[in-house]
Amino acid sequence: MTDPIYTYPKLREFALSIFKKIGCPETEAISATDVLLNADLRGIDSHGIARLSGYVRLWEAKRVNATPNVRTVHESPSTAVVDGDSGLGLVVAPKAMAIAIEKAHTAGTGWVAVKNSNHFGIAGHHAMMALEHNMIGIAMTNASPLVAPTFSVERLLGTNPIAVAIPADKQPPFVADFATTTAANGKLEILQRKNQQAPFGWIQTKDGKPSTNPDETKSGGALIPLGSDREHGSHKGYCLGAWVDIFSAVLSGANYGPWVPPFVSFLAPPTDPVGDGIGHFFGAMRIDAFRPADEFKHHMDNWINRFRSAKPVEGQERVLIPGDPEREISAQRLKEGIPLNPKVVEDLKQLGTKLGIEF
Amino acid sequence: MTDPIYTYPKLREFALSIFKKIGCPETEAISATDVLLNADLRGIDSHGIARLSGYVRLWEAKRVNATPNVRTVHESPSTAVVDGDSGLGLVVAPKAMAIAIEKAHTAGTGWVAVKNSNHFGIAGHHAMMALEHNMIGIAMTNASPLVAPTFSVERLLGTNPIAVAIPADKQPPFVADFATTTAANGKLEILQRKNQQAPFGWIQTKDGKPSTNPDETKSGGALIPLGSDREHGSHKGYCLGAWVDIFSAVLSGANYGPWVPPFVSFLAPPTDPVGDGIGHFFGAMRIDAFRPADEFKHHMDNWINRFRSAKPVEGQERVLIPGDPEREISAQRLKEGIPLNPKVVEDLKQLGTKLGIEF
Repeated sequence: MTDPIYTYPKLREFALSIFKKIGCPETEAISATDVLLNADLRGIDSHGIARLSGYVRLWEAKRVNATPNVRTVHESPSTAVVDGDSGLGLVVAPKAMAIAIEKAHTAGTGWVAVKNSNHFGIAGHHAMMALEHNMIGIAMTNASPLVAPTFSVERLLGTNPIAVAIPADKQPPFVADFATTTAANGKLEILQRKNQQAPFGWIQTKDGKPSTNPDETKSGGALIPLGSDREHGSHKGYCLGAWVDIFSAVLSGANYGPWVPPFVSFLAPPTDPVGDGIGHFFGAMRIDAFRPADEFKHHMDNWINRFRSAKPVEGQERVLIPGDPEREISAQRLKEGIPLNPKVVEDLKQLGTKLGIEF
Repeated sequence: MTDPIYTYPKLREFALSIFKKIGCPETEAISATDVLLNADLRGIDSHGIARLSGYVRLWEAKRVNATPNVRTVHESPSTAVVDGDSGLGLVVAPKAMAIAIEKAHTAGTGWVAVKNSNHFGIAGHHAMMALEHNMIGIAMTNASPLVAPTFSVERLLGTNPIAVAIPADKQPPFVADFATTTAANGKLEILQRKNQQAPFGWIQTKDGKPSTNPDETKSGGALIPLGSDREHGSHKGYCLGAWVDIFSAVLSGANYGPWVPPFVSFLAPPTDPVGDGIGHFFGAMRIDAFRPADEFKHHMDNWINRFRSAKPVEGQERVLIPGDPEREISAQRLKEGIPLNPKVVEDLKQLGTKLGIEF
């Protein structure tokens, strides 16, 4: 049985109506919808419309402010700290990234740490905002603790993704966007739905033992940092996740490590917060603050062409450039529609019924 | 048989004399020596005095300029591109990092891309220069192609390390410094000397097949990006290595990807260069461009204490903070001396004889 398919405009209209219904002003509802739906287009289904009802539940629990006053609370020529005023991360993040881009126009680069925010969708969307300005974009965020540092039984980090978007000329941009764990949580959700086991190296039990059970995190188990084990460099994945956590939250004044509030509304935030909400970090670097943009983009084309034409290993068709798979899925889904898991469809129908908007 | 042990002052004096002998001015010889010996102190033996004769051979082959005119060729308030004038990376890198720090004093952050340089020793040394200025330091470099991107048979990337140094208050700083491969090349060199096999996931044969032979790279094989294989996220390690390559070389105008010149003098650089020398990238972020430094450092202490006190998995004593192992080795080696592999001792003796300086 194949999943039912919905057109992008149809899903977009529904999400937009929902965001407006919970009180988001028009512009912010559009912004939130664009971020959310971009995840579905790019094939990152775990971060797309499947999360819409989760955001609404956070709003119902009064943990999301639909009309936040997103403002800069500290700044220098190339930096700012932004207070998200408990807004949807989907709204706060594009505003913060816009500030980074504005700073880069005058100072060459712009770096914005954000506190008091919520989950911001896919990191790649925000990083890619820089591209049309002939800038390199960077986006990262911390997230609810699900990941055990190397040698730790305790979950102290989120899946803490990093995205880097780099413009090219005739070639499409280089867009890396990845969780700093061996596998993103969304991949476990897929295995859970299919009742399949995970490979070793993705998860551990609550006692820190290797496991293949994709439900392990529901009983105190943890995701493992990129690298899988110490011998294969999990301490490097731990460094990456820690880096994201510190830039996103210790620099901004948000909650970090195990104090990051959970995304799910049925779990209460820690009662001893060390900061405000969750944290993000954004960067924008103007290419011509380093060298003429056309020169740079010409060399990026050369870089991309060389890597894409590399001889592949037996059994593989080609060597990919970061961003290739997502761009191909995006083109396909714009044309053919977006498949949704039946459980997600049911969830969206219930959400629609509750808020008086037909799905 | 244990390796012979030398005191830090003794090794330092020898390296300093060698750098002066090949024509480095006093200040630059000191700078190069400090970077090189810091690797030995921190236990990263592959990047320390063991490489001294390699640097001298590059100088003999006229691929290193002992009296470079290191200068800024392009800049904005928060950025610069520095031309290393074919200098020793050990000399060029600290100068470039100093420019990043200077920019950060006025603009909040400073970002310097470097072209026309050579190998710069350990990335962590340069990143740590920021710490005493109450800044976060970042350092990365590209390197000779030894790494195959995911699905590639060809070697297109170096081990391209990233270092991030973050100051704390009472706690020692957070210092992450790692190759973006599953295992650094230095780890293979150790296995080669001991005649031991590597774990699967570190290397592949020249046909892209899994291998455990640590000599594989000598016959066309490749190191594997952090993650080991596609299922365990090697595409993420590939993204990281590519990110470092592009920031270090495409932004600066250095050689990138397979065009990066080899470190060893007996291999000629590519005859069709796409830029000048190898490239580095440095960043410095002033903490108080984001929030008061004492507040930040107080929270860093809290972060570090929480992670360090996490419950360890069975069989492990504790959870480490990035930088812990290197700092502990450093304290020990300053006190007890630095062990050198007999082959390295022999090499240094020959170098001394050749240049008329007793080892």
